Amino acid sequence: MVQKDMLALGRRRSVIREIFEYGRKRKVEIGAENVFDFSLGNPSIPAPPQVTETLSRLLQNTDPATLHAYTSAPGDPQVRQSVANYVKDTFGFAASPALIYMTAGAAASLTVTLTALVGPGDEVVVLAPFFPEYTVFIERTGATVRPILCREEDFQVDPTALSHAITPNTRAIIINSPNNPTGAVLSLESVKAIAAILTEKETAFGHPIYLISDEPYRELTYGGVEVPYLPLYYPDTVVCYSFSKSLSLPGERIGYILVSPTATDAADVFDAVCGAGRALGFVCAPSLFQHMVKDCIGLVADITAYDRNRRRLLEILTDCGFDVVKPDGAFYLFMRSLEPDAVAFCERAREQELLLVPSDDFGMPGFVRIAYCVSFEQIERSEEAFRRLADSYQGGH
Amino acid sequence: MVQKDMLALGRRRSVIREIFEYGRKRKVEIGAENVFDFSLGNPSIPAPPQVTETLSRLLQNTDPATLHAYTSAPGDPQVRQSVANYVKDTFGFAASPALIYMTAGAAASLTVTLTALVGPGDEVVVLAPFFPEYTVFIERTGATVRPILCREEDFQVDPTALSHAITPNTRAIIINSPNNPTGAVLSLESVKAIAAILTEKETAFGHPIYLISDEPYRELTYGGVEVPYLPLYYPDTVVCYSFSKSLSLPGERIGYILVSPTATDAADVFDAVCGAGRALGFVCAPSLFQHMVKDCIGLVADITAYDRNRRRLLEILTDCGFDVVKPDGAFYLFMRSLEPDAVAFCERAREQELLLVPSDDFGMPGFVRIAYCVSFEQIERSEEAFRRLADSYQGGH
Repeated sequence: MVQKDMLALGRRRSVIREIFEYGRKRKVEIGAENVFDFSLGNPSIPAPPQVTETLSRLLQNTDPATLHAYTSAPGDPQVRQSVANYVKDTFGFAASPALIYMTAGAAASLTVTLTALVGPGDEVVVLAPFFPEYTVFIERTGATVRPILCREEDFQVDPTALSHAITPNTRAIIINSPNNPTGAVLSLESVKAIAAILTEKETAFGHPIYLISDEPYRELTYGGVEVPYLPLYYPDTVVCYSFSKSLSLPGERIGYILVSPTATDAADVFDAVCGAGRALGFVCAPSLFQHMVKDCIGLVADITAYDRNRRRLLEILTDCGFDVVKPDGAFYLFMRSLEPDAVAFCERAREQELLLVPSDDFGMPGFVRIAYCVSFEQIERSEEAFRRLADSYQGGH
Repeated sequence: MVQKDMLALGRRRSVIREIFEYGRKRKVEIGAENVFDFSLGNPSIPAPPQVTETLSRLLQNTDPATLHAYTSAPGDPQVRQSVANYVKDTFGFAASPALIYMTAGAAASLTVTLTALVGPGDEVVVLAPFFPEYTVFIERTGATVRPILCREEDFQVDPTALSHAITPNTRAIIINSPNNPTGAVLSLESVKAIAAILTEKETAFGHPIYLISDEPYRELTYGGVEVPYLPLYYPDTVVCYSFSKSLSLPGERIGYILVSPTATDAADVFDAVCGAGRALGFVCAPSLFQHMVKDCIGLVADITAYDRNRRRLLEILTDCGFDVVKPDGAFYLFMRSLEPDAVAFCERAREQELLLVPSDDFGMPGFVRIAYCVSFEQIERSEEAFRRLADSYQGGH
């Protein structure tokens, strides 16, 4: 007597969550230090001290009835202005505060944007491998998911595949760079290729194709790699941002939607975003954390720990002979499975107490995701386990 | 090129918000002290000091990476346990922590619950006058709104109207007590009548009819009036709660859904709630405020100011000869318009700088809503304006 699709979704435990739960039990059985849990993308570094200071100061110095009041639905005007200023100063892009809508994090940014832009009969292109919740969010609007595979050698977009995937029903494409699950950062060359293809298809089909840039990992890059700011390269862009990873505040749910002023019908897109936020039950983004953004935007948690993990893990895996594409961002590493069935490979890894996530749910079989937002000690201790896993495939089977 | 329904919704400025915006401009023109703005239901009292203390303490004493981490989707287990304990201790109702889902406030509680329970072809009964966003939330699921009028003399339910409104397609009914916009509290007699009718219809139609109890104003009652706890009287109840008003934290978005363990298919309802939360993009309720709930549940902001406003306003309006039903809860007063067209009445009130909300959007014409969550000074200063408004109807027009 409940909605069947929601029941199925509520019961469909995420594979990642199941592995994590297994890990919790296993740690009790054999000791936490003996389980190498690389399953969850849960930030392990603290928020910058300025975030805690700002929150404490706001609580001490602001009238609570003002501090915790409803903001207007798109957010506090000064907060929206601070986001626009930051985007201008950082990327040289003339964002408009009137087209910025504060949200309860990345998932909310995506559901609100998708609900505003697509519906039954529409198609949304996603680049595999991709965050599995995209399917949930897109299907809830009634639209259809059209996945295309990225190139396995570098996880950059395959222009031919993209060009073929776009039909007259394509209304949007989701881009996620730095990427979950690969850690890849889309190169400027890839971005320009995507922009050219989308522009060509817009002209051919006579309607806009909105590029939804899902960028919760924007600031998490290593070795000086740059993440091109998509609104600079493609007019019909909507940025879905979250502070979850940059400020290490995943549970607090704070982010924003930025509609490019250059987008087709930009004002309509923004109004539809407001309507969608209202229909889905997002009254305003949490007010204390909105006010925090005014003072803390541009700060980034100390991600040197992630980088150290990344470099050591790459070294270990390469040493063991695994086939790995060096990730430039986020805190994930995508590694080729040593047998075609990644689920079977993960089961064998589990015998070594290594908890890895098979790539099937990300839409690209034959790989595993390793979330390295863990302690450095865990990386070090896992070396022998990875070696035993690699050895177990020696001599064929 | 955007979703038409979302665009229309985003553009449809709420009448309340428009009056409020007019008031802002008018205050600049003639001075804030000369505008009597009763339009917005925005709490004007501060959060209890313990809330600020708890938040500050959590920020000082907890590792930020833990404090701001994702909780599990239904919420932190200890927080859910604290809600269950509170419900047990306060209402004597055996709530289960396994059936409590922490949410981002009342609107989220409602959209998640409705998405879990109803869809195209279903009908949801609402008692007019009602919070206008109910229509938005219900229609987004594809279900149909079936409003019935409450009795004008006391805003209690009309059992005959309720009985006639329920069809084989009725899947749910929303009850809101204390009520926005009337301030009425459903009597125990009304609750028992509703329970009896719903039970009879469940038997007749052979399927559950879920009662969704929207109770953000539960603790805001005056003169010792009690709000019956609905799960005690009707098994198929889902409570949608928010701390927005009890703790005066409307902008922070924190509340919960409680599925009664006695509800038909309670575990399925809860799983569908989890699925709906996921599909709508609610990853977890804001974590800092979840942890606050553990320590602060049961506290209530100092509502004596609201009560003082209520009593003085009643006195003024009665003195002026207006027809008013004494409100027992929330911070609203519903007053009969002095002409059949409440919009015209509000325009005439505006000539006296009185900003009132016509009742049409609440689904019951001929009344106005007066939100008295304002300063006591504003109530006092408005006396002459109300008197002039009443006088302007003397001798006909």
